[in-house]
Amino acid sequence: MPHSSAKNLSLIAAIDLGSNSFHMVVAKAHHSEIRILERNGEKVQLAAGINEERHLSEESMQRGLDCLKRFSQLINGMPQGSVRIVGTNALREARNRGEFIRRAEEILGHPVEVISGREEARLIYLGVSHTLADTPGKRLVADIGGGSTEFIIGQRFEPLLRESLQMGCVSFTQRYFRDGKITPARYAQAYTAARLELMSIEGALHRLGWDEAIGSSGTIRAIGSAIKAAGLGSGEVNAEGLAWLKRKLFKLGETDKIDFDGVKPDRRAIFPAGLAILEAIFDALELQRMDHCDGALREGVLYDLLGRHHHEDVRERTLTSLMERYHVDQGQAARVERKALHAFDQVAKAWDLEEGIWRELLGWAAKVHEVGLDIAHYHYHKHGAYLIEHSDLAGFSREDQQMLALLVRGHRRNIPRDKFAEFGDEGTKLIRLCVLLRFAILFHHIRGNQQMPKVQLQANENSLDVAFPDGWLQENQLTRADFEQEAEWLTRVGFVLSVR
Amino acid sequence: MPHSSAKNLSLIAAIDLGSNSFHMVVAKAHHSEIRILERNGEKVQLAAGINEERHLSEESMQRGLDCLKRFSQLINGMPQGSVRIVGTNALREARNRGEFIRRAEEILGHPVEVISGREEARLIYLGVSHTLADTPGKRLVADIGGGSTEFIIGQRFEPLLRESLQMGCVSFTQRYFRDGKITPARYAQAYTAARLELMSIEGALHRLGWDEAIGSSGTIRAIGSAIKAAGLGSGEVNAEGLAWLKRKLFKLGETDKIDFDGVKPDRRAIFPAGLAILEAIFDALELQRMDHCDGALREGVLYDLLGRHHHEDVRERTLTSLMERYHVDQGQAARVERKALHAFDQVAKAWDLEEGIWRELLGWAAKVHEVGLDIAHYHYHKHGAYLIEHSDLAGFSREDQQMLALLVRGHRRNIPRDKFAEFGDEGTKLIRLCVLLRFAILFHHIRGNQQMPKVQLQANENSLDVAFPDGWLQENQLTRADFEQEAEWLTRVGFVLSVR
Repeated sequence: MPHSSAKNLSLIAAIDLGSNSFHMVVAKAHHSEIRILERNGEKVQLAAGINEERHLSEESMQRGLDCLKRFSQLINGMPQGSVRIVGTNALREARNRGEFIRRAEEILGHPVEVISGREEARLIYLGVSHTLADTPGKRLVADIGGGSTEFIIGQRFEPLLRESLQMGCVSFTQRYFRDGKITPARYAQAYTAARLELMSIEGALHRLGWDEAIGSSGTIRAIGSAIKAAGLGSGEVNAEGLAWLKRKLFKLGETDKIDFDGVKPDRRAIFPAGLAILEAIFDALELQRMDHCDGALREGVLYDLLGRHHHEDVRERTLTSLMERYHVDQGQAARVERKALHAFDQVAKAWDLEEGIWRELLGWAAKVHEVGLDIAHYHYHKHGAYLIEHSDLAGFSREDQQMLALLVRGHRRNIPRDKFAEFGDEGTKLIRLCVLLRFAILFHHIRGNQQMPKVQLQANENSLDVAFPDGWLQENQLTRADFEQEAEWLTRVGFVLSVR
Repeated sequence: MPHSSAKNLSLIAAIDLGSNSFHMVVAKAHHSEIRILERNGEKVQLAAGINEERHLSEESMQRGLDCLKRFSQLINGMPQGSVRIVGTNALREARNRGEFIRRAEEILGHPVEVISGREEARLIYLGVSHTLADTPGKRLVADIGGGSTEFIIGQRFEPLLRESLQMGCVSFTQRYFRDGKITPARYAQAYTAARLELMSIEGALHRLGWDEAIGSSGTIRAIGSAIKAAGLGSGEVNAEGLAWLKRKLFKLGETDKIDFDGVKPDRRAIFPAGLAILEAIFDALELQRMDHCDGALREGVLYDLLGRHHHEDVRERTLTSLMERYHVDQGQAARVERKALHAFDQVAKAWDLEEGIWRELLGWAAKVHEVGLDIAHYHYHKHGAYLIEHSDLAGFSREDQQMLALLVRGHRRNIPRDKFAEFGDEGTKLIRLCVLLRFAILFHHIRGNQQMPKVQLQANENSLDVAFPDGWLQENQLTRADFEQEAEWLTRVGFVLSVR
């Protein structure tokens, strides 16, 4: 059971900081079932507040924070680990996301994570697959968001292919329909841009194939409703309906005049861009019909949260497959992990590491610290850090990956103090984890070829004292030399390692 | 047959710019046999001229260049592709290696490559395995150089494991025996430092195992000769001889007094460091005996060169295994390669790309441009470039890898003009290759799902004109939009792409 998880929790919540809207769901969890108690959604349009320099304006930041203030009433008292808050494309894009996250966390009292496009796709599929009936065929799921569009082909609860493209109904509205005019030429531009984006993935989707197509976002629901209102379907999206809507939009000529039943007024402005993207998807993937499903990202986040509390943590599976893929010496990784966690437990109190994800993080780092060896021996700690920072690691937020990458980067040779400092107050704790990881690696430097003795650890603010059994170091000069060399490395980050 | 290879060559040469000595061999090649015509070696001690800031001094640079002037007489007239010149650890280390390489190339009239430690290990094994009798067992080969020591376990002509450690007889002499004094304490320091270096690889070597141990460098030959002179062997290195030599060194107390038979005067200063490293290897690997083999790096370079001329280019195998490892869509890679080379042949003359490795390089880039997709879709061109720059790619020099990585980096989205500029005059040619690669990729953007027509290319200084059959672009608006977008990217690097 991870230390960061609240035990026996029954109330859980998820917040999705989308590029178009923010959504919150609160649910009651019972074993692996979820019952939704409360749903909230507000159209914040964060993506509209990002300029060309990828700077999120104070005004839209404020819009988002106001919404979170309202959400916060429901989750403020909930225990750590029972609420997961994820940011998607707008926050991936915004260079000043750090400021927004800081202010949001202050309001919410729970950590805010920014997730990658593929992680978003994974969670969307998790939400959809738990919402729909469990059928045996393959499903294509498309989710048109404000800033990105996710595609997944999955079977039952397993995503087989996850993709994320940089196109969304808010960003395309800004680019092609900013002033609200709708012309065939502009629509064609938006449509063509979407087709060009789709080119990079359509081959792979076709090759894998699917039995049914599902759409899971507000854009797709709104288009299905408008088609139904026109008498051309019963809520699904179909090719005939798309063609009818397009002709109708050209006749109206302005977004303000859109008055389709089932399309809320605040969705009018982004309707043409959403339609152009959806038509491009239909053409590129040769679809005739797409059904709508209500479950999506936030439901997926809830099920993922539930999995973490029921020993089905997808992160463990992710790391295991990473280790296999890069041919990690699993025996060595396990020895280092055991030693690192054992050392952690001796000093956690003195180093203020008892609360939070620190113990989990150290265990993860021990597992994967050698992945870079598979690229090259020279500077392999840097290659490992690169792989961990940039790979799509299912279940991990970007910040998790950055912290994990930094531990791997610092596991041998010099410790890049400035990179740790970028994490602010948490940087100090990360350096402490790094010291523990290095200790465990040095301890097993000989890789199981030597029986190692019991040692006692004693930690103070900036020092670690390692006591070997009397006389052992005298007889094992190599280990002694190894720790002396380590003490020199640590001195450079203001750390005193004493070994006796 | 690669364009860069001189055909039917019978005279080939290899120069090894080692950290301790420079060596040259000239040989006559007949089918896959090599007959050495000439050997030359000079003790340059490049590694001794590198300071703490990793700057190679003008003085040692000059020593090296003077030696190359003498070498150059024998190879000056030989055709391009028949001489291969490789630099090892001292040049890997020196930050100002670029200047040395430029001046060396001016003198030699042939390209100078800096190779990675693992590539060095591969070539050493190639030399050793072609020199020794072809036996079925596994061989451990160790080569103690001036700046690095290579270890290989191989069977017949195949290296199974290649490692390179940052320890060598010149660098260790500087660190532990700079003033020529030999004391037990200093020797113990050098020995322990070598043991600590060995710790990271000894487990893997033991696991794989070997039937015989071979040493292939001057250090090992000299130690074997000294042991033989003492009556303790017949040229091989053995544990008893090492112990005897060590006691003898402590008695002498100074490197100047070393007078072992078979140890040339210019090898005296580096003898104690070499002995400490070799003793550490014997202890870590639990060896009793190591035989010496004359063939090493430079012979390996000759056999590698010969392979390139006999359709056994190891670089092709390296790229094939890279593609497999990172699950490249091979059909797409082959389509892009064909198209890129076809385009190359239409414009090579106008763009002055006929001489050199340009055609090969473009083909390689087409093969591997999608390797980064296996890490993540987002920014995959950057991940691919990282993998190619940092992986141990057998057969490639570091500069080859850097150029290849840059083409992969620039194959989509923006072209990093400043990174191309770092290659000086060759940067212009690299950008042209990049334009051709991008053209071929765009041409097959739809990945085999569409029959593409014949096109005519016309190149001028900074422009490329692509002529589709009459009316084809009108009917294929997506391709047209695709090329219009591409034209915008190319404008940013001062390039005009016109499509009609």
